[in-house]
Amino acid sequence: MVEKRTPLPVADAVRRVVEQVRSIGTELVYLQESYGRILAEPIVASNDVPPFDRSPYDGFAIRSIDSKGASGDNRIAFKVIDHIGAGEVSAKKLQAFEAIRIMTGAQLPEAADAVVMFEQTLETARDITIRKPFIPLENISLQGEDLQKGEVVIEQGSFINPGTIALLATFGYSQVLVSKQPIVGILSTGTELLAVEDELEPGKIRNSNGPMIVAQLKRMGLRCKMYGISVDKLEESYQVVKKAAEETDCLITTGGVSVGDFDFLPAIYKKLGAHVLFNKVSMRPGSVTTVAIANGRLLFGLSGNPSACFTGFELFTRPALLKMMSATKLYMPHTKAILGEDFTKANPFTRFVRAVYDGEIVTPAGFNKSNAVSSIARGNALMVLPGGSRGYTIGDSVDVLLLGVEEGSDTWQL
Amino acid sequence: MVEKRTPLPVADAVRRVVEQVRSIGTELVYLQESYGRILAEPIVASNDVPPFDRSPYDGFAIRSIDSKGASGDNRIAFKVIDHIGAGEVSAKKLQAFEAIRIMTGAQLPEAADAVVMFEQTLETARDITIRKPFIPLENISLQGEDLQKGEVVIEQGSFINPGTIALLATFGYSQVLVSKQPIVGILSTGTELLAVEDELEPGKIRNSNGPMIVAQLKRMGLRCKMYGISVDKLEESYQVVKKAAEETDCLITTGGVSVGDFDFLPAIYKKLGAHVLFNKVSMRPGSVTTVAIANGRLLFGLSGNPSACFTGFELFTRPALLKMMSATKLYMPHTKAILGEDFTKANPFTRFVRAVYDGEIVTPAGFNKSNAVSSIARGNALMVLPGGSRGYTIGDSVDVLLLGVEEGSDTWQL
Repeated sequence: MVEKRTPLPVADAVRRVVEQVRSIGTELVYLQESYGRILAEPIVASNDVPPFDRSPYDGFAIRSIDSKGASGDNRIAFKVIDHIGAGEVSAKKLQAFEAIRIMTGAQLPEAADAVVMFEQTLETARDITIRKPFIPLENISLQGEDLQKGEVVIEQGSFINPGTIALLATFGYSQVLVSKQPIVGILSTGTELLAVEDELEPGKIRNSNGPMIVAQLKRMGLRCKMYGISVDKLEESYQVVKKAAEETDCLITTGGVSVGDFDFLPAIYKKLGAHVLFNKVSMRPGSVTTVAIANGRLLFGLSGNPSACFTGFELFTRPALLKMMSATKLYMPHTKAILGEDFTKANPFTRFVRAVYDGEIVTPAGFNKSNAVSSIARGNALMVLPGGSRGYTIGDSVDVLLLGVEEGSDTWQL
Repeated sequence: MVEKRTPLPVADAVRRVVEQVRSIGTELVYLQESYGRILAEPIVASNDVPPFDRSPYDGFAIRSIDSKGASGDNRIAFKVIDHIGAGEVSAKKLQAFEAIRIMTGAQLPEAADAVVMFEQTLETARDITIRKPFIPLENISLQGEDLQKGEVVIEQGSFINPGTIALLATFGYSQVLVSKQPIVGILSTGTELLAVEDELEPGKIRNSNGPMIVAQLKRMGLRCKMYGISVDKLEESYQVVKKAAEETDCLITTGGVSVGDFDFLPAIYKKLGAHVLFNKVSMRPGSVTTVAIANGRLLFGLSGNPSACFTGFELFTRPALLKMMSATKLYMPHTKAILGEDFTKANPFTRFVRAVYDGEIVTPAGFNKSNAVSSIARGNALMVLPGGSRGYTIGDSVDVLLLGVEEGSDTWQL
């Protein structure tokens, strides 16, 4: 008698997983090691940016009042009394009709309130002349115009990107409080699995899910602990799962979650006393994706079919791992695109089709079955087709979830 | 007298840089270290995928011919003669009205040509009965249906993503030929620059460009060699640039490329005998971005202004580094989006505005000047506004270049 499972809508399944996740704490890392981590404290401006009024151009600092009435017929002359580069501060204070030669980024001298760009002047040996009046604060970068001291600039829970690093550096964060990274265990189950270096044997295939998940974790900047390959034997597998669940923050298994005679994960979860959040999701591929929780630790029972395994990770495991790190943005980036070819096969379940998205059009990435491997490598997105009685037609607007944009375009399009 | 520079259109500048780039060779790495690298050989299928006809379901393998005429009123019985899981091969050959109990992923037994799913049968102790006829190959994953032996599956020059890893594992690539990664030098120039751990001083700011570029390289999986901060002195800076250019595949300097009195990079390029590809680009920010080549090595003279520096890296340095690795997709991913607010300030140069793209709408990421820092951290895209005499209005369709999708959405939108 085959067990009857009730499929859960994808959104409900995602919510059920995310609800269970608790943060795993914080740690202090050096700025140069913080790229890709999740901020565990807000970035607060420790000074104004810019920290002083400064010149955004190479030119001459003047008092704008002295430029009044300047024109082509009435050039006004200024005596150049000092010369400063960025990082230097003039000791002089401007008097009437005096100018200080100043370079981009340098602090404005005392009494100056405008900058005349080089190309707006005529120079002689010791003087400059100008042909237009300047208004107060013309050509000046004002102290605090970008950011003001005390301001919360970036909220905690944000991903630390290169711009975040620039901000942290600006404010003198040589160390940064970030979320700890979960230790993720990976166990591949299946008597049919060979290691990568093995020769093929009748009835067997090489384990591709294990290395694939390692890479999915790496894409997130995470590392893992490998528990190898387990054959489909209940007691042996149980012992490995038990150990792995104790040693990690989260355990991913592949295979063994369907209703076959050697699919032992359901029995293992029972033996562990795990609470199964769901064991059937109304999605293709990956409908057998199972998530359980034991002693506060999430156990992801992903399908042994590569495409299903891949999708299960991105939809359920990724947001859970991000929430363990208290990230605020848990879900894959979403956009809409035009379907590039007919997709006629209707299905009652929501489909997540591995696809190629080019910024406008989305096209299935080839062979589309849950056991497909090729389309995972060829795709950069998941195309989402809600379940129903009809197929989809070229030109339809469909939902797209982006997997990564490490690889961009082969042409410069602008 | 200020030097007059002729601005080059962005597309021409990009082309000029990319044209100069030569590949830097290949190396063999272990599969587990190959994520994020660029493939230097095509992936060729070393076996069919699947490697044998197999069952995609848990059920019973039968000869379809025996199911002819089956119906609800005329159930046909099969004797179950064996039981195999994935990874096992039955030694038996089906005879008329015999079935073999078979699990997902297991190799189809001899003479079988269809699989009956569990839920399509009624079971007794030793028999099953079915109520519908099966056609030849029904419910079978055919050998080679995903990929055929000898097929080129992924071209060289591709980014190795998690799916690529799955393919490499499938075909037994325990080592992979990938492109070497360039060694990139970073030198920040400017008398105004302090180190991150320094207290602010009058007229000075902390160096944010150096750490930012390190992170931009890390986003690409690349490491760098730091040459610290150089004050604006010609001879000293020349010595550092010369050394750095010799020790690296490519040198990035920040600052010193404008026309100010202490902008020594032009003089340094001259002293090095470097060929300047361009020193002015018709873009904002970053119009002073300069690229030169000396002894076959590219020298990127990025602006000292953070936003300009960031943009210069993404537009020019990134494709050059990718081409050094013989990647086929050199350019940032491009899409179109709806402008979320008015952008009225016209400019004759093309603007690359740091922006937040949510999959549909793009909005400037805040304070928008070349010296801005905040908007780099807050943005996930560059919005491209061609130069001209007019501004842009909310609702306009504009070009968008994506920077990264590591951070996705804060809501599940499907």
